[in-house]
Amino acid sequence: MTEVNHMTTHEILTRAKAAAPACAAMDTARKNELLNAMADSLIARCGDILAANDEDVRRAEGVIAPVMIDRLRLTRQRVEDMAAGVRAVAALPDPVGETVEERTLENGLALRRVRVPMGVIAIIYESRPNVTSDAAALCLKSGSACVLRGGKEAFCSNDAIVKALREALAKCGADENLVNLVQDTSRASSAELMTARGLVDLLIPRGGAGLIRACVEGATVPCIETGTGICHVYVDKAADLAMAERIIFNAKTSRPSVCNAAEVCLVHADVAEDFLPRMKRALDEKHVELRLCPRAAQIIDGTPAGPNDFDTEFLDYILAVRVVDSLDEAVAHIARHSTGHSESIVTSDGAAAEKFARAVDSAAVYVNASTRFTDGGVFGLGCEMGISTQKLHARGPMGLRELTSVKYILTGTGQVR
Amino acid sequence: MTEVNHMTTHEILTRAKAAAPACAAMDTARKNELLNAMADSLIARCGDILAANDEDVRRAEGVIAPVMIDRLRLTRQRVEDMAAGVRAVAALPDPVGETVEERTLENGLALRRVRVPMGVIAIIYESRPNVTSDAAALCLKSGSACVLRGGKEAFCSNDAIVKALREALAKCGADENLVNLVQDTSRASSAELMTARGLVDLLIPRGGAGLIRACVEGATVPCIETGTGICHVYVDKAADLAMAERIIFNAKTSRPSVCNAAEVCLVHADVAEDFLPRMKRALDEKHVELRLCPRAAQIIDGTPAGPNDFDTEFLDYILAVRVVDSLDEAVAHIARHSTGHSESIVTSDGAAAEKFARAVDSAAVYVNASTRFTDGGVFGLGCEMGISTQKLHARGPMGLRELTSVKYILTGTGQVR
Repeated sequence: MTEVNHMTTHEILTRAKAAAPACAAMDTARKNELLNAMADSLIARCGDILAANDEDVRRAEGVIAPVMIDRLRLTRQRVEDMAAGVRAVAALPDPVGETVEERTLENGLALRRVRVPMGVIAIIYESRPNVTSDAAALCLKSGSACVLRGGKEAFCSNDAIVKALREALAKCGADENLVNLVQDTSRASSAELMTARGLVDLLIPRGGAGLIRACVEGATVPCIETGTGICHVYVDKAADLAMAERIIFNAKTSRPSVCNAAEVCLVHADVAEDFLPRMKRALDEKHVELRLCPRAAQIIDGTPAGPNDFDTEFLDYILAVRVVDSLDEAVAHIARHSTGHSESIVTSDGAAAEKFARAVDSAAVYVNASTRFTDGGVFGLGCEMGISTQKLHARGPMGLRELTSVKYILTGTGQVR
Repeated sequence: MTEVNHMTTHEILTRAKAAAPACAAMDTARKNELLNAMADSLIARCGDILAANDEDVRRAEGVIAPVMIDRLRLTRQRVEDMAAGVRAVAALPDPVGETVEERTLENGLALRRVRVPMGVIAIIYESRPNVTSDAAALCLKSGSACVLRGGKEAFCSNDAIVKALREALAKCGADENLVNLVQDTSRASSAELMTARGLVDLLIPRGGAGLIRACVEGATVPCIETGTGICHVYVDKAADLAMAERIIFNAKTSRPSVCNAAEVCLVHADVAEDFLPRMKRALDEKHVELRLCPRAAQIIDGTPAGPNDFDTEFLDYILAVRVVDSLDEAVAHIARHSTGHSESIVTSDGAAAEKFARAVDSAAVYVNASTRFTDGGVFGLGCEMGISTQKLHARGPMGLRELTSVKYILTGTGQVR
């Protein structure tokens, strides 16, 4: 195995770019062979990975918050889960080579639009080391080389994981530069990935709002904005209130730390007096703090909502609540405050549901269901490389298809124009 | 009509953003009614538009090159062509609302992925005033408001065109802020469009390499890189040389100033001695200057190729010529020097054609046809908003479909996770 330490980010990018065409040309069987070998290698190197992770955890203790340490910590079970995740990607259909469109032009040219790999995909992410193997597997299956830039707290873990993955590639006679870890974890390397025009075909930031903003604002390479979620549940005047209670309870409390959890409940004035007390009773069970608009505060107890409470991704047991006079007012509130991730209406009125679904401009719009379903696995993509909250290329959960591009192939018999 | 002069770019963007939802909600008949009224208004205001154009041309004379003056100048015929272009967009199928995908998830949620408008599309372009009406029509038909930022040499013409278009919108009772012209033609307004996060959903630069680079590098809003074309024709050892001669003649000389014209001919060494002299005879008729690699120079007369000749979009009667020893060498040359626009192989060998089509990573790859066909009209899109040479969202000619996004709509019966 080539020694990758001390390689500059530019050298790593150059090697990934050189490796990409061979990956693009691989057939499905070969890619799956490599993926399964990568999974085997994670298990074989589990001891090394856990030792490296111990080192990361030891350095991080007292430096980062306990919840972040939990995210960072690996166990044998977690490494086995990572390997299972890589095998699951091997089992997914291969998006590359699919003919998306096929027709004959008036001049006789046979036109085909086919799905092709991106080339080099760079991913900048934060502390969870499982992202390392997930991202490498998704990129390889979609025919691209990847350049991974993880957080400095997870460097030893990520390095051990990538060493195991590259070892598998080398053993199978493939170019190990299909999977690369940036060795420099300073801001300089992120900046270099963001601006490596001609070397990076797609940049995906995965992490907190600050990281994503830095990438979107600093990137000169194509970049997809992923995932902050200020998600809304609107309880319409025609809502089944028992269903509304179940949905808001689930959307808020089943996993508050994730981006598809609800942060705001909008309630139609006609049902506010009936609904808010029962909602509060349900949420009290989980000690959810309510931040209330003045009208809601006249009906139930809670904290008065501050100026930022309708624009905050709490990621916690906190829910902002506002009473609105109409569906239009709910839609307007969402247009002004949403991050465009996931919103839900609870209603028995088909026309109201249709209007909401049409007017709300978010990646996923729900009728009578929890916002928690916005997820690549649930949507049947088999996997997920973040959730796009912008409108270009991919919107919502990104699976293998969203990691590819297309090209036109036109076959003629000497046509000139 | 509201007075738009002296409105700041931020005010214009804010009004466009406010106007966009109504446009997104319009049905096809209403959009077509507005488009046909816009076409009528261009004809009705033809006198005003030509007078404004005279003013632009008068100011530009002696300041910009004669070829640029030609691009700037409008005639009654050109205004009629603009109106016909707007009517042609009205006649195209409406992409908005199309169900792209529909299935039921395991949990019973009915999932639909539907095509939706972008919202606000900003376009920064150079001197041709016809782009103004084209872009406005394409954005409106795809359900988006547009903010147009033309070049300062065409400001009076663009302003008169936009006034005519807005007058038509107002007459039909629609929001005239669906079509907007930025009043400030300094660099500051371009910079503002590039960074108007939350107000611009898509930025499209149309123009020279400098403009496009500035947008791609400066944009913090989603941006699509369009069209410089260093296009290659590769004459394989198994080529029909008469066909190769016709294709290279057409690709180079039928319209050298456009992005899909060929700039480079690669010739397999096995056929170079037969092919190059006949190619030269054909191109001599149009006085094409040949920039030759040392091996080509041993076969035909021409200028020795300089260090940049294989990396230059000549847009002129100039062709760089290189002899290669294999298809692989041709593919490698293209990977290193192409802008990813359009490339062609001339060959009678099916395996060579397939290998080339697979390995060349450009928006359009041709087998036995001229590169000149890369065009929205020719590809059957009915229109074109530039040609994307990057891999995100759109690749190749961008039609109405490429000006839209998608969203997921999920309908349930109270599902929680």
